[in-house]
Amino acid sequence: MKAHIITIGDELLIGQVIDTNSAWIAQQMNALGIFVEQRTSVGDTLPQIIEAVQRAGTQAQLVLITGGLGPTKDDITKKALCTFFDTHLVFHEPTYLRLVHYFERIGRTLNDTFLEGLRQQALLPANCTQLTNNVGTASGMWFEKDNTIYISMPGVPFEMKHIVENEVIPRLQKNSALQPIVHRTLLTAGVGETQLAKELEHFEHNLPHNIKLAYLPDIAAVRLRLTARGEADTHHTLQQVVDDQTAQMRQLVNQYVFGTENDTLESVIGQILVERGYTMATAESCTGGYIAHKITAQTGASAYFKGATVAYSNEIKTQILGVQQSTLDTYGAVSEQTVTAMLRGILRLYGANVGIAISGIAGPGGGTPEKPVGTCWVAVGDINHQRTLYLQVGPRDRQINIQAFTTLALNALRKFLLDNKE
Amino acid sequence: MKAHIITIGDELLIGQVIDTNSAWIAQQMNALGIFVEQRTSVGDTLPQIIEAVQRAGTQAQLVLITGGLGPTKDDITKKALCTFFDTHLVFHEPTYLRLVHYFERIGRTLNDTFLEGLRQQALLPANCTQLTNNVGTASGMWFEKDNTIYISMPGVPFEMKHIVENEVIPRLQKNSALQPIVHRTLLTAGVGETQLAKELEHFEHNLPHNIKLAYLPDIAAVRLRLTARGEADTHHTLQQVVDDQTAQMRQLVNQYVFGTENDTLESVIGQILVERGYTMATAESCTGGYIAHKITAQTGASAYFKGATVAYSNEIKTQILGVQQSTLDTYGAVSEQTVTAMLRGILRLYGANVGIAISGIAGPGGGTPEKPVGTCWVAVGDINHQRTLYLQVGPRDRQINIQAFTTLALNALRKFLLDNKE
Repeated sequence: MKAHIITIGDELLIGQVIDTNSAWIAQQMNALGIFVEQRTSVGDTLPQIIEAVQRAGTQAQLVLITGGLGPTKDDITKKALCTFFDTHLVFHEPTYLRLVHYFERIGRTLNDTFLEGLRQQALLPANCTQLTNNVGTASGMWFEKDNTIYISMPGVPFEMKHIVENEVIPRLQKNSALQPIVHRTLLTAGVGETQLAKELEHFEHNLPHNIKLAYLPDIAAVRLRLTARGEADTHHTLQQVVDDQTAQMRQLVNQYVFGTENDTLESVIGQILVERGYTMATAESCTGGYIAHKITAQTGASAYFKGATVAYSNEIKTQILGVQQSTLDTYGAVSEQTVTAMLRGILRLYGANVGIAISGIAGPGGGTPEKPVGTCWVAVGDINHQRTLYLQVGPRDRQINIQAFTTLALNALRKFLLDNKE
Repeated sequence: MKAHIITIGDELLIGQVIDTNSAWIAQQMNALGIFVEQRTSVGDTLPQIIEAVQRAGTQAQLVLITGGLGPTKDDITKKALCTFFDTHLVFHEPTYLRLVHYFERIGRTLNDTFLEGLRQQALLPANCTQLTNNVGTASGMWFEKDNTIYISMPGVPFEMKHIVENEVIPRLQKNSALQPIVHRTLLTAGVGETQLAKELEHFEHNLPHNIKLAYLPDIAAVRLRLTARGEADTHHTLQQVVDDQTAQMRQLVNQYVFGTENDTLESVIGQILVERGYTMATAESCTGGYIAHKITAQTGASAYFKGATVAYSNEIKTQILGVQQSTLDTYGAVSEQTVTAMLRGILRLYGANVGIAISGIAGPGGGTPEKPVGTCWVAVGDINHQRTLYLQVGPRDRQINIQAFTTLALNALRKFLLDNKE
């Protein structure tokens, strides 16, 4: 089954909003074996929406549409769908009552203007099946026409996700036209695409014709994805063939691999810490709390994360982390000696088993000929063993440098943990 | 002038990578008065790429293409463009020499395999104008055919941005076919789309026909964007008309507005702090360093940001921030009393003028009937005046809750600063 995704909204075309919905929907569809062939974004105008839906319908068996279902005047998707399906809006009472009850329950005053807004949101095209949205006011809609399924959903990401998970996926799973497709991904950090491509040249050349390798570079990280389509041979399933190729690939680049599929450096670290009953803490200068944020964005991080000190000024480094003033004077804030002292300080202060300390120049200002923008020192370890790492990520922009520093520092902690099993 | 953006890469269709390039390119084009009418993402297959380029060329006068120019086997954009333009690849010696010199300068060993890779990257379609990429190995390419301009660029965001800024924009600015388009955006926080739409109903209804209002909701924030196209009346420029409407709109919703255009809460706060010569610090529990990260992601934050303590455990709250154990025992970690004590603690510890302290339940675990997931207490202020805020952002996912807490806490600090001028 082939799918097209259409995202609607002027904001996507003038670049004010980044389209994260498409990527998330595509992931879900892929997991079902549905191949997303094309994605299109169009503005909030009737002819553009209708043309995009029409074209997608001639090319795909599944058309997923997000956006343009809000209560405001610029949201016109329902009107466009009525034109396309040659139908009209009807009042869907169960939806109206669900919305009224919801707002009553959370104590909202329901005046006439507000109720009129809810009434608008309960008007749906006559030929659609309503898809319940329990986290917002815009319903999803399911249409079928000429063997193609059309699904329209609100553009607000968490509302769309709620509808996909609770309404769309269960319905699609009942559809029998799904073709086999299998992905396997290895995640690497601290190595470039060109280097990986060199080490995998022979492997890639000898891949079976129905398996494709893609290099997906990110900041200081590259994902290696094998995709297999169609049928495997008579003796093996497609999964078995891909798993075997993935294992072969892993052997070739194992030193760079930190995880698979949806792992992240912070999830891998979290898992190791939980297994060992360890705690951790960070002392951050140039990353400004970003490492702590990445760690604490993990569900369950409170089991192992003690906390962090963001020491943006030298006073904090001396007064709170206990770095000697003489160390800062002799070696500078961005030095092996300073990050080592910061690491020892944070481990003592927070009573954590392991930690990360980092100090560098994220830019655009602050660089010198000896220590240009992109220079960074990292220390990782425990109270007895510290390992330091010098980074030079090149003079890119501040955000990219912060992300690169964070990825490489997390990877260093991961490696320290693996090399120091007790 | 109408533009289409085409982003190429299987990774965009299986959802492993979010397409940020389209949004950024669209912003740049809009600033030039170029209207981006459609965005399409296609996979790494010749027929899909060729079909998308062909279709875009029949509808737009400018086709911007990113992706598929890497040195690896899955990158086939150049081949597709050669087919589309009925041409072939030729060796572009200046590009080859530039790449060789670059890698020599950074001390890279240039063996035969590596040089062969660079030679591949210097092969360009015979009919294109080369666009120099000083930050990577893949050149940009500029083509013209039947009055349409086609531009192909690498998909790596910072390489693409470099080429757009240094090569594409200067060339497009020389083009005379640009039509007038003007955008103005007001940024609000802490108010929903429905509420804003109610307060702006009359205003929106009376807008001139060539001006359109769009509501762009984000987490705990909504952007209000006015877009004017075409010509204004004989007495005023399009800019004047839009500025006048923007001022009218601002009067109606001024209490929610924190900035305009590309402002952020953290940039607005940074500006106020710099003007007053103030410093700030944060004490974070549930946001785990995300507020510190947002503040320090600003260029120049070191002028006013002293640092942060991420107090994920209660020990850190008592031992480092000086919260009384009895306060935690009586009121709990998520309470007005605790965040007030955290704020006083961080201000004393870091010697900062103002600060933010925050403690809440980001979920998915940790909620209770009295304090469900999404509950949060914030304190902002200086050593003499603290203002507290109770938040209930609803039971959404952990990431969204962290972002909502951060936005609302930053907005609270901004309001405190505005209300407490000396």
